[in-house]
Amino acid sequence: MSFAKDFFADYNCLTSAEGLLYAGMDNVLVTYDMFFRELPDSGGFAVMSGLHQLINKLSDISFCEEELENLKNLGFSEKLIEYLRSFKFTCDVYAMPEGTPVFPNEPIVKVQGPAIQAQLIETLLLNTINHETLIATKANRVVRAASGRKVFESGARRAHGFDAAIDGARAAFVGGVNATTLYPASKKYNIPLVTMMGHGWVQLFDNELDAFKTYLEEHGEDGALLVDTYDTLDSGVKNAIEAFNAVLVPKGLRPAGIIIDSGDMTYLSKRARRLLDEAGFPDCDIYASNSLDETLIKDMLNQGAKIDGFIVGEKLLTSASSPVLDGVYKLCETEKDGVKTPAIMVSNNVNKITTPCSKRVWRLFDMDSGKAIADVLTLDNENISEEKSYSLFDPDFTWKRKTVDNFVAREMLVKIFDKGECVYRTPSLEDVRNYCNEQVSALWEEVARFENPHKYYVDFSGKLWGVKQALIEKITRCSESEEQ
Amino acid sequence: MSFAKDFFADYNCLTSAEGLLYAGMDNVLVTYDMFFRELPDSGGFAVMSGLHQLINKLSDISFCEEELENLKNLGFSEKLIEYLRSFKFTCDVYAMPEGTPVFPNEPIVKVQGPAIQAQLIETLLLNTINHETLIATKANRVVRAASGRKVFESGARRAHGFDAAIDGARAAFVGGVNATTLYPASKKYNIPLVTMMGHGWVQLFDNELDAFKTYLEEHGEDGALLVDTYDTLDSGVKNAIEAFNAVLVPKGLRPAGIIIDSGDMTYLSKRARRLLDEAGFPDCDIYASNSLDETLIKDMLNQGAKIDGFIVGEKLLTSASSPVLDGVYKLCETEKDGVKTPAIMVSNNVNKITTPCSKRVWRLFDMDSGKAIADVLTLDNENISEEKSYSLFDPDFTWKRKTVDNFVAREMLVKIFDKGECVYRTPSLEDVRNYCNEQVSALWEEVARFENPHKYYVDFSGKLWGVKQALIEKITRCSESEEQ
Repeated sequence: MSFAKDFFADYNCLTSAEGLLYAGMDNVLVTYDMFFRELPDSGGFAVMSGLHQLINKLSDISFCEEELENLKNLGFSEKLIEYLRSFKFTCDVYAMPEGTPVFPNEPIVKVQGPAIQAQLIETLLLNTINHETLIATKANRVVRAASGRKVFESGARRAHGFDAAIDGARAAFVGGVNATTLYPASKKYNIPLVTMMGHGWVQLFDNELDAFKTYLEEHGEDGALLVDTYDTLDSGVKNAIEAFNAVLVPKGLRPAGIIIDSGDMTYLSKRARRLLDEAGFPDCDIYASNSLDETLIKDMLNQGAKIDGFIVGEKLLTSASSPVLDGVYKLCETEKDGVKTPAIMVSNNVNKITTPCSKRVWRLFDMDSGKAIADVLTLDNENISEEKSYSLFDPDFTWKRKTVDNFVAREMLVKIFDKGECVYRTPSLEDVRNYCNEQVSALWEEVARFENPHKYYVDFSGKLWGVKQALIEKITRCSESEEQ
Repeated sequence: MSFAKDFFADYNCLTSAEGLLYAGMDNVLVTYDMFFRELPDSGGFAVMSGLHQLINKLSDISFCEEELENLKNLGFSEKLIEYLRSFKFTCDVYAMPEGTPVFPNEPIVKVQGPAIQAQLIETLLLNTINHETLIATKANRVVRAASGRKVFESGARRAHGFDAAIDGARAAFVGGVNATTLYPASKKYNIPLVTMMGHGWVQLFDNELDAFKTYLEEHGEDGALLVDTYDTLDSGVKNAIEAFNAVLVPKGLRPAGIIIDSGDMTYLSKRARRLLDEAGFPDCDIYASNSLDETLIKDMLNQGAKIDGFIVGEKLLTSASSPVLDGVYKLCETEKDGVKTPAIMVSNNVNKITTPCSKRVWRLFDMDSGKAIADVLTLDNENISEEKSYSLFDPDFTWKRKTVDNFVAREMLVKIFDKGECVYRTPSLEDVRNYCNEQVSALWEEVARFENPHKYYVDFSGKLWGVKQALIEKITRCSESEEQ
């Protein structure tokens, strides 16, 4: 299968690039933040993902002659074409490492460099990080709902295209799932692969028992049997037991499991468990599938379902209950002739007002518990000293203050590109997954819970707060005076 | 940017293929139907899309040596590797043309051929048609809500990966949008392209007026101005008017429009309309963006918003309020040694019971009104004669009957592949879009409406109904007798 290698950008990225050239502003130095405003599923945090793909995409920007010809035909000037022909990415990029719990209104990616370049990569960057972070976040919810039971991702058939399935499988693994059913995802990203019997297999045989026996003869201890093609308890589980006894037991093998894909799975799992136990297969796992998500899984487990693993499909790979991460990419500083100017956007929607300046993000961890206390945004030239107590305050409700002592301050934005050169080594996917698990464990349970989670603090340094307030006041005063 | 060219399949497709070879059943002739069970957004119909991509993908299946080596390393047998090395697609494929309104529980794609091939393409087929049909369906809802106003698709920044954005833009165009903002989608599929000013452009300048003037100097009558970076009415619209007068009017040019991206857009659009009219720009269009979907658009128009066009992003490209089409791919017939056997799946969920046999789908149109009356599924060897009246009956509630006269019966499944050769010429995208619009107009308003649409009839011929009932009874009798 062949795919387009065209530059991935909204038209606006290209017209703005040309406009900047035209206005002689292409090399103004800028800082852009990517951040999101709302957490999916009204959760307490998101899980950063997609940096690996972003690095590959940013490392690989080039414009072939066919593409340049096409842009020319769209009416772009020779000046832009020439610029793109010799395009070389020279920005600095900082980002939160994959697997990090991230929060609204803090930069999770920061781009610094010539305005024209920062503008060109907007769509590419947002698409990649928004999608991957959304799916890693959802997967982490599903995995936490399964409380230690296995979770297999199996959503390719209803994901939004091939990328959504392949890259989504990677994000799901970052978030904590155990394996994927999607072959090319496993191949591309070295994710453990698991196979699931389909109804088609069972239907192809004259009867279910023959289908099961043939499958077990081939797969032995590896293949779980799908038992709901005709009737889960009266046909499927009975035939499964008969097939285990006929094929596996004589060889001294044990069954991999059975899969229930329809019906009241709590009830069916309890009945199936009893049948399997009575037949001498207490070690046969029971898997459930059928449009599962974290809410259904929690509910089934609360009702005492006898389920050892969950096969989770489209509701994970589309994050169906909350299918958008609303990440944006906003200018926060410009630098002309060595003079830095903070940039802001003051919207009629208060929640759309941006935070100016190139910033650092610090996460404070309590020394005793190891738990994360708060994130603090500061100006680039500020430090947070662990030697003395630090006073946190809420940027919206400044009377809300809290003094913390005995903490570790970790800087969260890691340098990924230095003047266009990648200086970051992506950890192995397994390491990313472990890091995610460890960092989520460092959140207070109140922040991590599903229902009305406690809002994690993302606070400002006093200096940053001061710059933002002054800018807002300046702009709103301007509008007022114009009105008079 | 480079993309994987790996075969897109769940592991299960490959293990089943091997199992079929192993069991000597690889060349059993089968018929698989793709159909869906639930309509997105509880709507009255879906819009078929993705056939163009499906044709390309099916035409392009091949396994390179590197891929075969990888499969070998996964433990697949030499027999499967050999089979894949010389793989040639030889199935017949039938499908509903793109742009066709389609309904639950009727085949929208039908695959006939060797079991091993039909099995291998399952994930590829479902992923493609599920995604594209979902987005075309959503786009059609958005376009209908906009009642003749322009709709621009602009969701790439939050779509689920590059494919989701590029192929999603095509599906959105099929469903009726006017243009996309995504450059590579326009290039790949020849979709009209539109540019949107970003906040970054405005922020880069010392003041909004300079940003607007520079933009208009470059774009003239093509570029709409984004007016909500600082304050929509007191700053944005005023500066837009000043820039129109300064840059466009002296050249005899007229403004393309303004874009409002935040705030109460109904209120702001009314106020902005008045300001523009008073300033002599009654022809300046007002566009609205900001997480719009069909519900918000209808609501804004009901309140008298003065909006000439809508820029619709992530809520369209993820079908956010209903992000999954639940299409499945089920075996409905096998043929061994010339003997055809209908196949069924009888689930504990009644709505998961499948309809057996290779089928034809007919759509009956009323001769007088031109409106679609019902779809009828028949066996392959049945015809529907337009010469005499036809008696429809509901397959679930068989006492519900209706006799139709004076109708045209159109066969809906078109042959796409004949023994693996593509025999279908995809119409131009513009033609597909027009066909969609025309076919949606042929639905009764009661079927097309958003709230509690009338359920369109998808009925069975008496013969098909008979085969299905007999099979269900046979299988449930078997289970019962086993139980005694």
